[in-house]
Amino acid sequence: MIADFESLEIYPMTHEIDALIEDLVIANKILYNEGVVDGFGHISVRHPSLENRFFIAKSMAPGLVTAQDILECDFDGVVHDPQNRKSYVERFIHSEIFRARPDVNSIVHSHSASVIPFGVTSQRLRPICHMSGFLGSQTPIYEIRHTAGETSDLLINSQKLGKSLANILGSATVALMRGHGSVAVGTSIKQVVYRAIYTEVNAKLQLESMKIGTVDFLTDAEALATSAMADVHLDRPWALWKEKALSSHG
Amino acid sequence: MIADFESLEIYPMTHEIDALIEDLVIANKILYNEGVVDGFGHISVRHPSLENRFFIAKSMAPGLVTAQDILECDFDGVVHDPQNRKSYVERFIHSEIFRARPDVNSIVHSHSASVIPFGVTSQRLRPICHMSGFLGSQTPIYEIRHTAGETSDLLINSQKLGKSLANILGSATVALMRGHGSVAVGTSIKQVVYRAIYTEVNAKLQLESMKIGTVDFLTDAEALATSAMADVHLDRPWALWKEKALSSHG
Amino acid sequence: MIADFESLEIYPMTHEIDALIEDLVIANKILYNEGVVDGFGHISVRHPSLENRFFIAKSMAPGLVTAQDILECDFDGVVHDPQNRKSYVERFIHSEIFRARPDVNSIVHSHSASVIPFGVTSQRLRPICHMSGFLGSQTPIYEIRHTAGETSDLLINSQKLGKSLANILGSATVALMRGHGSVAVGTSIKQVVYRAIYTEVNAKLQLESMKIGTVDFLTDAEALATSAMADVHLDRPWALWKEKALSSHG
Amino acid sequence: MIADFESLEIYPMTHEIDALIEDLVIANKILYNEGVVDGFGHISVRHPSLENRFFIAKSMAPGLVTAQDILECDFDGVVHDPQNRKSYVERFIHSEIFRARPDVNSIVHSHSASVIPFGVTSQRLRPICHMSGFLGSQTPIYEIRHTAGETSDLLINSQKLGKSLANILGSATVALMRGHGSVAVGTSIKQVVYRAIYTEVNAKLQLESMKIGTVDFLTDAEALATSAMADVHLDRPWALWKEKALSSHG
Repeated sequence: MIADFESLEIYPMTHEIDALIEDLVIANKILYNEGVVDGFGHISVRHPSLENRFFIAKSMAPGLVTAQDILECDFDGVVHDPQNRKSYVERFIHSEIFRARPDVNSIVHSHSASVIPFGVTSQRLRPICHMSGFLGSQTPIYEIRHTAGETSDLLINSQKLGKSLANILGSATVALMRGHGSVAVGTSIKQVVYRAIYTEVNAKLQLESMKIGTVDFLTDAEALATSAMADVHLDRPWALWKEKALSSHG
Repeated sequence: MIADFESLEIYPMTHEIDALIEDLVIANKILYNEGVVDGFGHISVRHPSLENRFFIAKSMAPGLVTAQDILECDFDGVVHDPQNRKSYVERFIHSEIFRARPDVNSIVHSHSASVIPFGVTSQRLRPICHMSGFLGSQTPIYEIRHTAGETSDLLINSQKLGKSLANILGSATVALMRGHGSVAVGTSIKQVVYRAIYTEVNAKLQLESMKIGTVDFLTDAEALATSAMADVHLDRPWALWKEKALSSHG
Repeated sequence: MIADFESLEIYPMTHEIDALIEDLVIANKILYNEGVVDGFGHISVRHPSLENRFFIAKSMAPGLVTAQDILECDFDGVVHDPQNRKSYVERFIHSEIFRARPDVNSIVHSHSASVIPFGVTSQRLRPICHMSGFLGSQTPIYEIRHTAGETSDLLINSQKLGKSLANILGSATVALMRGHGSVAVGTSIKQVVYRAIYTEVNAKLQLESMKIGTVDFLTDAEALATSAMADVHLDRPWALWKEKALSSHG
Repeated sequence: MIADFESLEIYPMTHEIDALIEDLVIANKILYNEGVVDGFGHISVRHPSLENRFFIAKSMAPGLVTAQDILECDFDGVVHDPQNRKSYVERFIHSEIFRARPDVNSIVHSHSASVIPFGVTSQRLRPICHMSGFLGSQTPIYEIRHTAGETSDLLINSQKLGKSLANILGSATVALMRGHGSVAVGTSIKQVVYRAIYTEVNAKLQLESMKIGTVDFLTDAEALATSAMADVHLDRPWALWKEKALSSHG
């Protein structure tokens, strides 16, 4: 294991990895600063060259993560760290989605507040505006009771649970988890950060709109078109979020 | 084109333009700091002397805009910039409203949160207090499907769409855009910033009020009188917003 | 008039007045920092020795007020200022309440957000917890249409309107103003700041509670007892609010 | 009394006590910074060696508390302080719960906003997500009228009232107080701070969820399992809250 890990040091693409880890650290701070995560929640990024590996922080609050806290984890959920530090109990959310979805390179798991109501009621989260077309025509809900029964602690703390979550996610961009939170996936850190933030925004807008009337959601075609449009504008909010997060965190 | 642009450098009213651009930059920061825009949204101001021209930032988050980022655009949506930088895809919101409304000198487009519900439900945004009389007796709603069909990305990215939006706006001060946001217009930067901020405030107040009962809105005459009253008090909040925005942005 | 004003300079109680004005300035900043006022709203304090006089800022945003901005105004709404600066158009709120209520020494007028819904619907603002017993068994609502008709700009910009507002306030501590805001009165700056802040808090709590069920409000006797109790604890939140406001405003 | 108090100075476990008081000070700041307390509310911790004693701040806003402000109080509500400073009128909340619950080592009393609606309506606060399983299957509500009648000031200002509150709390982790606030208990400062914060979070999530549909709460077994799970993760949010609170308070 140590040999595998040290390969990171001598790997010719060290600069690329350093840049990726720097973005992962910034993403951790952005997600805290924009209110998507609090003391809990996590973001990962697929290793750019080693198969079945991804980067994720050790078990700690995202808002405090630095580059020294990033660990390498494999798709069986085994952490490869010379210091034997531990990552999150729920790293199986990441490992199994990376395994099931080759198109996904970055994953956010959060408990953001406005999304929770759509996991515990019969109301479905749907795209209400052009910023959140990535939600598509339906957002699947993961009910852990179907796999773990009615006495679990709701955590995705095993490969089995991770696989069942990945199965519910299917080809979607976001899945809600009943009584827990949500997971968002993307092809890049910037895209998944955008999606995690605007999933929360959409949920907040939808909550308010539903209270005053029947909502005219995006058509499926509008969702598709706006999602594609958003992808070419990812740098714009990232630049803002990054500056704000870094200036807030010293 | 370059010749046209350089006329800006030698124009005798350089000082006036510099002051206008400074206010435009401050307005960008205010709109971010007061929560009207996030990473997206934009504000423009009509050129004080050149016909069919206006100033607007290059394509970037409003909260990060500096004087060096302001571009000159014409009413066909063509940007005149020696560095060939690009402005927003939706600059046609501005160009076509400036063309249709000679009384308008400044325009804000935003996705401010409390306004969205009034664009996607059958509830109409109406003036609920003396700060927002400018909303008048009705706030028109722009449905892009009437012009672009049901598969668009909802952006006002052409002259045709800009014209249709300007047509719906008519002589109003604010128009909502279904599933997208809103546009506010004014005779000056200070007025339109005031209107953009209090459109959001009014929407928030109206959402809360509607949840507990039937709302007693301003009469049309009260809306008219309070709108005129607000116009003589624009400097007061501007001074506050400016100080707060500048101290927040370093 | 100038003679009267200059008496302030030579008055033996200069130190008391300086301290009072310092507290008035701090109160302005607190009300902004705690979200009770934005660019608009005002607070006044009765002159400690000159009859029919009170202190209030010149026409400006409360959050920016300094000791140099405090003016002296009489009960006819005439400002006595050697520099001929102007105070708020609505200074008659203060002058007429001070005239009608000898027990009142400080007054806040604001547009705080959660209070507005209770002025434009049939729901009455009532004390929901022990912090806001001062609201008593009923909070009167001022309908300016009864005095100014249906075409006014809603401002209390004359003695006549000020008197009609003072009449509706009667012996209460807070009166709501339809489509406008509220006014709170107290025997001291600390008390009225407390009341203005907890009027907003109570309104917010009541809005949320009403959405999920029938509310069990304080009994009249509980309102009375908690109001007396709160009066002996005014220094505690004031110390906090002061430190926060001063550290926010540099 | 003074002799008892001075024993604190010569006690061999001085370092342990210093560390406990330091955590108590940090907890005060965290509770303010995370919005659980405002100018009012308090947190206590049981004395690690002296029976029938606990530490709590003198009567002041939690956000301003320093180590010098911590007093020692006994289970009869008597403060043992050489400077004869006073603690909170409601210290009986703490003294009587410590007396009745040997398993409890730290207590928070607050008026956090989202919890209030569940004390004044017929809706019960229940665990809606895995972060708040400690709420268990029911959250008891204390109605002070049953003990103090309908004319009280709602404060727990006597041993009698403290005992009646402790009685209603029973073996629960959180009790609501009608028209007042709530009390949370824990085996440690970190646990009770976590519980106070996530009681507010749960209340906010439940308010929003109830507005859009029928809520699928945690099963009792899920509540139990998630509560145990949360207890092994207390350091993670504490590290974040501590850094944020200390950097906010200078």
